Amino acid sequence: MNVTGESHRLDTPFGFTVEHRDPGGAARCGRLVTGHGVIETPVFMPVGTVGSVKAVTFEQVAATGARIILGNTYHLYLRPGHELIARQGGLHRFQGWDGALLTDSAGFQVFSLNELNRITEEGVEFRSHLDGSRHFFSPELSMDVQLALGADIIMAFDQCAAYGADPREVAAAVDRTTRWLGRCKDLTGGRTFRDGWERVLFGIMQGGVDETLRRKSAAEIVDLDLPGYAIGGLSVGEPTSAMREMTDLAAGLLPEDRPRYLMGVGFPDDILASVAVGVDMFDCVLPTRMARTGTVLTRDGRLVIKNRDFAEDTRPIDDECGCPVCARHSRSYVRHLFQAREMLGSTLATIHNLHFYQELMSGIRDAIRQGRYPAYAATMSGRWLAGEEARLEQVRRGR
Amino acid sequence: MNVTGESHRLDTPFGFTVEHRDPGGAARCGRLVTGHGVIETPVFMPVGTVGSVKAVTFEQVAATGARIILGNTYHLYLRPGHELIARQGGLHRFQGWDGALLTDSAGFQVFSLNELNRITEEGVEFRSHLDGSRHFFSPELSMDVQLALGADIIMAFDQCAAYGADPREVAAAVDRTTRWLGRCKDLTGGRTFRDGWERVLFGIMQGGVDETLRRKSAAEIVDLDLPGYAIGGLSVGEPTSAMREMTDLAAGLLPEDRPRYLMGVGFPDDILASVAVGVDMFDCVLPTRMARTGTVLTRDGRLVIKNRDFAEDTRPIDDECGCPVCARHSRSYVRHLFQAREMLGSTLATIHNLHFYQELMSGIRDAIRQGRYPAYAATMSGRWLAGEEARLEQVRRGR
Repeated sequence: MNVTGESHRLDTPFGFTVEHRDPGGAARCGRLVTGHGVIETPVFMPVGTVGSVKAVTFEQVAATGARIILGNTYHLYLRPGHELIARQGGLHRFQGWDGALLTDSAGFQVFSLNELNRITEEGVEFRSHLDGSRHFFSPELSMDVQLALGADIIMAFDQCAAYGADPREVAAAVDRTTRWLGRCKDLTGGRTFRDGWERVLFGIMQGGVDETLRRKSAAEIVDLDLPGYAIGGLSVGEPTSAMREMTDLAAGLLPEDRPRYLMGVGFPDDILASVAVGVDMFDCVLPTRMARTGTVLTRDGRLVIKNRDFAEDTRPIDDECGCPVCARHSRSYVRHLFQAREMLGSTLATIHNLHFYQELMSGIRDAIRQGRYPAYAATMSGRWLAGEEARLEQVRRGR
Repeated sequence: MNVTGESHRLDTPFGFTVEHRDPGGAARCGRLVTGHGVIETPVFMPVGTVGSVKAVTFEQVAATGARIILGNTYHLYLRPGHELIARQGGLHRFQGWDGALLTDSAGFQVFSLNELNRITEEGVEFRSHLDGSRHFFSPELSMDVQLALGADIIMAFDQCAAYGADPREVAAAVDRTTRWLGRCKDLTGGRTFRDGWERVLFGIMQGGVDETLRRKSAAEIVDLDLPGYAIGGLSVGEPTSAMREMTDLAAGLLPEDRPRYLMGVGFPDDILASVAVGVDMFDCVLPTRMARTGTVLTRDGRLVIKNRDFAEDTRPIDDECGCPVCARHSRSYVRHLFQAREMLGSTLATIHNLHFYQELMSGIRDAIRQGRYPAYAATMSGRWLAGEEARLEQVRRGR
């Protein structure tokens, strides 16, 4: 069941090495070593929410060049359940993906998808978005669930304060996130071997858009000396300027020799700007979600492929693109599939968008290696302006 | 844009040769030569209704072993339109399928999907099932549309009387089908080259379940000496026994040296029984439609994969199956995808069912070559009992 075409060693210890730095800035190119393959950074991780990257097979995901994907602990815990997945040998085997896996902690979803959650020091009580049933998530349960899923990288259970929340609430979330991170580390030791595979724990920084709180959060989580760190609490509705400013600050507060993961970001421009300040890892539902609504990305910007303008357009979606969709199909054909409500339309648009993101990232890595990142970022930026509404829409619909 | 992995010669003339016969019966094994590849018969043609075999890519279709698929003239005429497809180089290129193509004549749909059709000697006036708009289809338009689509095999525009129709109506439909076939042949000469590709015309026999009318229809269409013949007007609601009896009669009335195509059939048992009386070609939406509702076929029968019974079933859908789904995924995983309403569930079930049909057909061909077809058909039959309701449901939903 090898979809990535690579064979993996069970005894590879997790590691991260920076191999190239942009002379003029903080951008860097590195290698993330996991038991399920080596990943070049900066990397974009497609989102496989609930056991599937929506609308495509894992062979198709691997064919885009992706070697690490994200799974959502919250969704998998509710359906089909982590115990069922564990009984079947873990998430890699259950879904048939032999590349690397990262699972989030469910923290983001229990806060963002649940108005009615009740937070205590112990954890969070929330209602399932599927059937309204009551559940209780704690740092300990998040670790148990993620260890059962068996991802190579597991995320700490954090408290993400909403944008615009009371400053005292944001401060309290920082302190609780630190205490919860301690409990997550106590349970896992930060890195642990299970069934011959290593799983490592990443800590998550909070602090909203408050510089002082970001510094405090960073100092406290870095103190716990973890294999990697994530920047949380951004892309939750704040203005682009604030997100960029905080990302710049946050990345600089994290250790040089550990991977830096900006959670839930994002739009190509956000990725280009965040790489410039030293971010290594990204994930976002954008390429897959946009694809299912008929929006595809090209080097010249976004196309709403369903539009009448493309009815007779015999060009590929993007004539510089190396994906199988652009090799074989016209805009006219893909547009027809959406008009006729054929599932294949979503599949082809998803393959293209995922391939587009992988090409964007390899372009970024090449530019860093060749010491021309600032110029590359400058030419690439501004082609896919998101606009605040698009961002807020993304936040509203959850990640 | 080669999906079948074969390269085709533009100047291959259409041909059909019988290579093996079952010593004890009428079953036969042959080769259908088209400009887009050589097809071994008996063959099952997956249905690519409106520019896509639902829920799968054409690479995935080719990987099941399929080398000829069917396209629906009625659906493609309405959306995106045959002129648009012609401007893009024809249906092969438009959808990115380089295997062989057969298009039906729209006759079946204008009768079955339209209660409000008006039939004259000239043709049929009907309303679009999409927007109720009025359209008029004639033998001439059907030929024009099919020649524009550019399939390797095009079907005559026939009149299909409903099961239980007044005997005089069935008799009139036979006469009109013969006259319309004459007009189709006048327009195409029976076989014609366009843009370097050959398209051949198949005639269609009607006559409902009336032996005398079947003999009359057969005599009249065979008299026109066409490259191939289809048995129409069956699998339209008649009892299984009547369908089997008429198929046996009809196949025997068609020339030994021409391919015999039983339209819209069907269930594995119908295929096994029809091969035994000398049918060479089949098409049906069954494997793809069943897949999208979570029903998969195995050597032990049908499984409704969504059922609770499969929640923890770690076995593949069919442990004798060679498809990539059975190689990589468990019943439990596929069931989960349907539970979570992930599109991938439909995709994986479709890949499996199409692969299952291709394996069924290659098993049939091997058995004929080895002179053991009756025994093979006997052991395989009765595993996937359809039941009249299933048949009627299929008829009600259209093909």
